[in-house]
Amino acid sequence: MSWNRVAVVGAGLIKFGELFEQSFETMAAGAFRAACDAVDHGFDPQSIDAAFVATQRGTLWGQEGISGNTVPTALGLAGIPCTRVENACPSGSDAFRVGAMAVASGVHDIVLVIGVEKMRDKSTEEGLLSRAAAGHPILTRGETAPVLFAPFATRHMYEFGTTREMLASVAVKNHHNGALDPYAHFQSEITVEQALAAPAVCSPLHLLDCCPQTDGAAATILVPAERAHEFTDNPVYVAGFGVATDHPYLHEKTSFVGLDATVLASQRAYTMAGVGPSDIDIAEVHDCFTITEILDIEDLGFVDKGKGGVASLEGETSLTGRIPVNPSGGLLAKGHPIGATGVAQMTECWWQLRGQAEGRQVEIRNGYALQHNVGGRGSGVSVVNILTNRA
Amino acid sequence: MSWNRVAVVGAGLIKFGELFEQSFETMAAGAFRAACDAVDHGFDPQSIDAAFVATQRGTLWGQEGISGNTVPTALGLAGIPCTRVENACPSGSDAFRVGAMAVASGVHDIVLVIGVEKMRDKSTEEGLLSRAAAGHPILTRGETAPVLFAPFATRHMYEFGTTREMLASVAVKNHHNGALDPYAHFQSEITVEQALAAPAVCSPLHLLDCCPQTDGAAATILVPAERAHEFTDNPVYVAGFGVATDHPYLHEKTSFVGLDATVLASQRAYTMAGVGPSDIDIAEVHDCFTITEILDIEDLGFVDKGKGGVASLEGETSLTGRIPVNPSGGLLAKGHPIGATGVAQMTECWWQLRGQAEGRQVEIRNGYALQHNVGGRGSGVSVVNILTNRA
Repeated sequence: MSWNRVAVVGAGLIKFGELFEQSFETMAAGAFRAACDAVDHGFDPQSIDAAFVATQRGTLWGQEGISGNTVPTALGLAGIPCTRVENACPSGSDAFRVGAMAVASGVHDIVLVIGVEKMRDKSTEEGLLSRAAAGHPILTRGETAPVLFAPFATRHMYEFGTTREMLASVAVKNHHNGALDPYAHFQSEITVEQALAAPAVCSPLHLLDCCPQTDGAAATILVPAERAHEFTDNPVYVAGFGVATDHPYLHEKTSFVGLDATVLASQRAYTMAGVGPSDIDIAEVHDCFTITEILDIEDLGFVDKGKGGVASLEGETSLTGRIPVNPSGGLLAKGHPIGATGVAQMTECWWQLRGQAEGRQVEIRNGYALQHNVGGRGSGVSVVNILTNRA
Repeated sequence: MSWNRVAVVGAGLIKFGELFEQSFETMAAGAFRAACDAVDHGFDPQSIDAAFVATQRGTLWGQEGISGNTVPTALGLAGIPCTRVENACPSGSDAFRVGAMAVASGVHDIVLVIGVEKMRDKSTEEGLLSRAAAGHPILTRGETAPVLFAPFATRHMYEFGTTREMLASVAVKNHHNGALDPYAHFQSEITVEQALAAPAVCSPLHLLDCCPQTDGAAATILVPAERAHEFTDNPVYVAGFGVATDHPYLHEKTSFVGLDATVLASQRAYTMAGVGPSDIDIAEVHDCFTITEILDIEDLGFVDKGKGGVASLEGETSLTGRIPVNPSGGLLAKGHPIGATGVAQMTECWWQLRGQAEGRQVEIRNGYALQHNVGGRGSGVSVVNILTNRA
């Protein structure tokens, strides 16, 4: 595979949270402004020649279903080519990949990738759950997200001796990191005791094992690598990416101690980037639940299968650990506004590689950051993007 | 702009209609099989290394919201990278463009672009309209599609003397063509008198001025141009494409006699392809309503602004006319399963350029075919793709 390299020259997000006071368009505009302002040598927003918008929730609130053609107007960019990319929870990370391919193809030069999601304006009853009556196939079976991931936790406990304390250690770490991230939804520390004592959602997952429902938006600006120095003296490059699908339903899975799509997507990304797990300095991974981060760090190759719980408990994934994971606070503390999540993770990777992550900065040795999402009905699709500060 | 050329080596669709007996996945599989079977030198479906799925209606029926990761399993392709592309009515044509860029980028080699849409399984009340209670911004204002397009018809009549007979002539032509297309939803001729006498939907648009609600699926297979001859001796190439957004709401429009997004998208596509309107031998355009085709042929440059009605009445767009438009029967007769529509139009263009359109084959002189969709709240986005049989 030979492709034209792509650089990320701007990235930014709005503070995640319950943003009842901001419209869908306001959130998008805020993230866009943040990304433009982050371009070191200054940036004319009108120079953008194409955009990709990630929004997952279609037609529930009204705007998202056709956000590809409503967002440009909100950004003052009406006229540009703009396309909505949706791929369940990895919508944002997949939009980033599609945007990178648009630049690499030679068709578009300066590409905006923006993720935006309204999660809180409607009650659960008015949102997805209201579709249950019309035969929504997940909800009529009670297959909400905690129900889809809990069996992975129980099986991981059974096979590898993973404990609720190990799960809790992931939540404690990510809330610690979130407390250092001014963009995080939750910015306060929690204790293991609090996590263990939290009410059960779907055993063994309790409230603090679960990510919140969060509103948010994030944006990145991509250009051909050979043009990067017009925009910055400190560019970050797309080293590689990989996507893999899997059978979407739980009854089709062959394993409940790992997510095959993540293994396959990461293998593809590592191959494209010409690196391996040991080259990664920092990873932003999909911790929709504590057990998911444990599966992720195993499936991405950071630790052996079955060792994710112990590694988390022993601090290997902390800010100063062997492989810092989710310095931003992750989905558990920063939040999970679906379409925005992957783009926000890329922004954190971009900051980390540029040494701009302030109180949560990790040590960059090899110059590689990895971003990961998994989603669908449990794990129907996984996306891995790898960034580097190596020219 | 320099980019690696892309070839279309397979294309196919299922017969459009009210397909209550077929699931979403069954329709997708049918279209996929048709596209694979159409590859002249034979084709191993397992050689596909990435896919893009166009589906517009998110979360209403259950499957479509995450079709990017449910469709691969249905095709026997679980594992491949697969991404849903949504862009209102041009979802299928935009997925084609994104797929072409993925090939041109050098990242993916053999790419499936598939469009699939279930329109009929739920009643209107259970579908989009049920969202009105939750504040759906189109439906709470009564802005259904006929209401969005009728003002363009009345204004076109006022400024240019366009008549209901001229509108009817578009419906008569497209139903004539549809009667020659074994894949069309409607395969019977209609008369001008029938069109004029049909019940009003939103004056001056009557029932036969409106496209039906149709289920369907279509697929194309893209490869790098330099590999085309592995698959066929009769390849078709992507000559160019263009996308343009516009302010999405009617009150933001500056004209009601044309769609700015179509003008801009076609200029971009013509520039990329290095051709002009007079080079196009056949066009598949977005005739969601009869007035839309009249606007389209003006905005695409086939006739002067204001002359679309007269040109249609005088047969300039018939199968044997100066510029044959919608030989497949168009949305009016073939149907409009949203995500599938653009991909099906591309299939018709592919057949026409290869001389395989049987009873509806048009004369190919210059070797260029143009495909067009417009959508959103009236015309928030337009996509134009141009194919050629010129090496």
